[in-house]
Amino acid sequence: MGSFMIRTDLALEARESVDESEQVLQGVSVDEEYNEKSELRITRVVIESKNSAKLLDKPMGTYITIEAPAMALPDEDYHQEISRELQKQLQEIVPGIEKELSVMIVGLGNRDVTADALGPNVVDNLVITRHMVKEFGKAAYNKERVPVVSALIPGVMAKTGMESAEILKGVVKETKPDVIIVVDALAARSTKRLNRTIQITNTGIHPGSGVGNHRNSITEESMGVPVIAIGVPTVVDAATIVNDALYKVLGSGADEFPKVFEEIRNSLGELYNMYVTGKDVDYEIKQISHIICNAINGALDV
Amino acid sequence: MGSFMIRTDLALEARESVDESEQVLQGVSVDEEYNEKSELRITRVVIESKNSAKLLDKPMGTYITIEAPAMALPDEDYHQEISRELQKQLQEIVPGIEKELSVMIVGLGNRDVTADALGPNVVDNLVITRHMVKEFGKAAYNKERVPVVSALIPGVMAKTGMESAEILKGVVKETKPDVIIVVDALAARSTKRLNRTIQITNTGIHPGSGVGNHRNSITEESMGVPVIAIGVPTVVDAATIVNDALYKVLGSGADEFPKVFEEIRNSLGELYNMYVTGKDVDYEIKQISHIICNAINGALDV
Amino acid sequence: MGSFMIRTDLALEARESVDESEQVLQGVSVDEEYNEKSELRITRVVIESKNSAKLLDKPMGTYITIEAPAMALPDEDYHQEISRELQKQLQEIVPGIEKELSVMIVGLGNRDVTADALGPNVVDNLVITRHMVKEFGKAAYNKERVPVVSALIPGVMAKTGMESAEILKGVVKETKPDVIIVVDALAARSTKRLNRTIQITNTGIHPGSGVGNHRNSITEESMGVPVIAIGVPTVVDAATIVNDALYKVLGSGADEFPKVFEEIRNSLGELYNMYVTGKDVDYEIKQISHIICNAINGALDV
Amino acid sequence: MGSFMIRTDLALEARESVDESEQVLQGVSVDEEYNEKSELRITRVVIESKNSAKLLDKPMGTYITIEAPAMALPDEDYHQEISRELQKQLQEIVPGIEKELSVMIVGLGNRDVTADALGPNVVDNLVITRHMVKEFGKAAYNKERVPVVSALIPGVMAKTGMESAEILKGVVKETKPDVIIVVDALAARSTKRLNRTIQITNTGIHPGSGVGNHRNSITEESMGVPVIAIGVPTVVDAATIVNDALYKVLGSGADEFPKVFEEIRNSLGELYNMYVTGKDVDYEIKQISHIICNAINGALDV
Repeated sequence: MGSFMIRTDLALEARESVDESEQVLQGVSVDEEYNEKSELRITRVVIESKNSAKLLDKPMGTYITIEAPAMALPDEDYHQEISRELQKQLQEIVPGIEKELSVMIVGLGNRDVTADALGPNVVDNLVITRHMVKEFGKAAYNKERVPVVSALIPGVMAKTGMESAEILKGVVKETKPDVIIVVDALAARSTKRLNRTIQITNTGIHPGSGVGNHRNSITEESMGVPVIAIGVPTVVDAATIVNDALYKVLGSGADEFPKVFEEIRNSLGELYNMYVTGKDVDYEIKQISHIICNAINGALDV
Repeated sequence: MGSFMIRTDLALEARESVDESEQVLQGVSVDEEYNEKSELRITRVVIESKNSAKLLDKPMGTYITIEAPAMALPDEDYHQEISRELQKQLQEIVPGIEKELSVMIVGLGNRDVTADALGPNVVDNLVITRHMVKEFGKAAYNKERVPVVSALIPGVMAKTGMESAEILKGVVKETKPDVIIVVDALAARSTKRLNRTIQITNTGIHPGSGVGNHRNSITEESMGVPVIAIGVPTVVDAATIVNDALYKVLGSGADEFPKVFEEIRNSLGELYNMYVTGKDVDYEIKQISHIICNAINGALDV
Repeated sequence: MGSFMIRTDLALEARESVDESEQVLQGVSVDEEYNEKSELRITRVVIESKNSAKLLDKPMGTYITIEAPAMALPDEDYHQEISRELQKQLQEIVPGIEKELSVMIVGLGNRDVTADALGPNVVDNLVITRHMVKEFGKAAYNKERVPVVSALIPGVMAKTGMESAEILKGVVKETKPDVIIVVDALAARSTKRLNRTIQITNTGIHPGSGVGNHRNSITEESMGVPVIAIGVPTVVDAATIVNDALYKVLGSGADEFPKVFEEIRNSLGELYNMYVTGKDVDYEIKQISHIICNAINGALDV
Repeated sequence: MGSFMIRTDLALEARESVDESEQVLQGVSVDEEYNEKSELRITRVVIESKNSAKLLDKPMGTYITIEAPAMALPDEDYHQEISRELQKQLQEIVPGIEKELSVMIVGLGNRDVTADALGPNVVDNLVITRHMVKEFGKAAYNKERVPVVSALIPGVMAKTGMESAEILKGVVKETKPDVIIVVDALAARSTKRLNRTIQITNTGIHPGSGVGNHRNSITEESMGVPVIAIGVPTVVDAATIVNDALYKVLGSGADEFPKVFEEIRNSLGELYNMYVTGKDVDYEIKQISHIICNAINGALDV
């Protein structure tokens, strides 16, 4: 039925969908670790070759996934555990974080659409230091190592007329951070992963990622400094859900029904720019924002 | 494939789905009127018998639908036209509106979930007079006929622990309005109707309507005063969309594949409490809120 | 210069202002406790006679004040300490809290005015159980004692046309909680107390309290069940600030200048319905909302 | 009593305060026009010399003030009249607006503090075209002259760690608009001017303007393109209000009481970073945002 319908921002799901078709994937390494006590599953996918990047439709680089089934449920201790795990992963993947970095954190997405507001929500609660350090020096903080933290919520293109990448490029040139951390809502392929998975990658953000329409890439190449992206799938593309349901039912027999294809394509066209989300999305986004916010504050030790 | 999956709050769609199965519907009258200039289609469905009510899964009463294809697009003149049409319909369906009514307007839904925030958004911008009339008399308004307008946003059960109906019952007993107008986001069956249809009904609000989980009815029977409901479909139930896509493909052949049924049911279970909405839902809800707000203010002549 | 200008919702300040005029106050008992380690000052004012109630312009009852100088600063450990202290005070003052109470928490104020949004913000983050207990019984919670918690944000009169007291009366009659806890933003006399003081009282809420215009009382008398009020001064009345500054300068000499009085009154008239608040009010309200929310959740043990 | 306390962002008030001290102001031209029918007063202050700029503590340039006593009251026709007047003034002061300009509109201020949210609110409702023109060309708009409109809400320094000026400089270099229009909340000297005055100036935005703390200038000099600023006074500095009240009472006699000075200074220190605002600030800001938004959309003819 073709991969044309499938849309996922998770490298984990991209790999699974290929495995399903029983292809052996060279140039992709996968490590999985499961902590029974915390029920956290950490998967580390490294896409090492151009070929595998093309096959998975994801750029070369490292993708770490933290899966936490109860992430959006009200359990503060568990949230702290996830936060600590995310913090640990950030400390490993953000280059130079052990030194006194200047970091810009960027919250992508649309704060007026609940499922797309993750990035702005995280940024709203970060500890920001750059203006204080610039005015009063590190002395203001009474500790040896003070990271210089700034943050930006660029807004979505429909409201700014500009690509997030354009806005960031300008601000980065002007304020010269050492590294950028981008937070964004993603699209998953399966509703089972919604609001219970965090992906961390050193490949940045790419066209069409997430709910928003972020057309230009935000990567080390385009920004001139390393870009770490933290993403949480909060929606599933509506066409993808229907496509997958049909595939399940029709199975391999699909190839025998070319007319059916036609109909499916037509019916999915209606679903362009539609997405699926849960009823408690406001509560869940709030919980996850806290988890990510605490992890970033912790990783930067502000 | 059974109607068990189908979920729509629009009487119009309920009727269509029955027509499709080629049943003649007795006890349901339908009048349609199309204004070519304004491109507004007004459909008036009256469910007159208990039988037809059961068949359509909608209570007996009048359901008026205003369909306006470009309702959510940025065109202020067109919005005013829709507003005037809605105002006209309200003036006909709200009992006693030509007199000096005491009206309570209720905004149902969750203001923190964009697609469910229609009710709260409308109420946020209404002209409220009750407190002024109570304190200064009608003299404060310098006109002969001053309606007594109050408004309430009860919030959703997950955040109040109470049914909206419980809250309203109490407030109605205490403040004794002559009539209640309820505004709520609805679920449609087809994405084509999202954010371009307004339904006005004198049957009130019923369990499971809209995105929110409003379990108890808000009707003349439960409230003791007439209840007019204004609703706009802003979401489609995710299970309904998949169900309808499958039905299109499998057609009448479905009955031959009982196993397929089973699979479908299982895969739809995952979609419980999931809904489909569009990417520009924030902008569209804002536009439609203005239209409804202006129509209510106009109809009450405040 | 007359007390006509002075506006404070804090019993603590009302008492101080009387002391200043060197009157001995009978019928008012005051206990103060200072914890050097936590830097928390707990003052317990009990107004025991009608006379003293009249003099202080506050109803008879108990007023506990927690003063925490750094309450609005970013220090999570300190916030937890304040939260625990507030929780302890609530456990003492809420009648029957050791039993399995049914509690309704009410967030007064206007969520669209930052300094007045304390009540709504607190309620937004509470753990609500009533709907779960009603549907699934206590079994849903897997503990012996499950309080039945509901919550309401009635909105301000300018937007509802109804007094908060009217709305509450209706809802209380309908849902019959054992006790009401009301959270509201208050007005202090001195800017020094803004956002660093919490008042807990068993006298409820009275006309003109806080920024909002809550005209009717919310008390055990009007509601039929005990009403505990938690308030934090977030604003100072603008006329009060000018009045106090003038008084400081003119001192007792004021009586000699009747013309000056006249001018003052005129200039203060301009300030009617104006209030003074700080630049970081959004951040501070957010911090304090968390403190109060955690304390209520803790006191109810949900 | 010294101008050290006086804080106003309105050139109109700065001039008045000098006039009061009966100094003749050379290098300042003032034109006033009053429209009896619309009750709009338009004042055009041009500061033409360095000397007068220093005396008024305002940079050389043109300051147009539209005073509309009922600006914040609910009267849509009147709002349209103010909007048209503002549109007319913009069409005169924005250089090159008759051509097909590329314009960036910037909403300064803090969207989480009601009185400071004017800029973000205006930008939220603008018609944005830049992304459409870039993707589809002017053909998308079906008219001859399509302005290229982009917009940005940079956020306040406490939340970004960056000066608004730094962010803008970067974005301007990257996206190269022909002109910048900045919208911001201002501080007035008198509560009488709050939410009923609009100032338009070609001098941009300067340190300490408005409620927010925008330290670096946003001017043609710093940005490289003309900067037009639209401002509405939404607050009065608390120290200014007390200062002015004291001055009224003490009058010229103040000089005789040096001790009084001392006390005043001390008492005003407490008021640092405190401001005075009205109770209906949410409603009023909403009304005025609409007025300005419509005027900008109209002036750009989008």
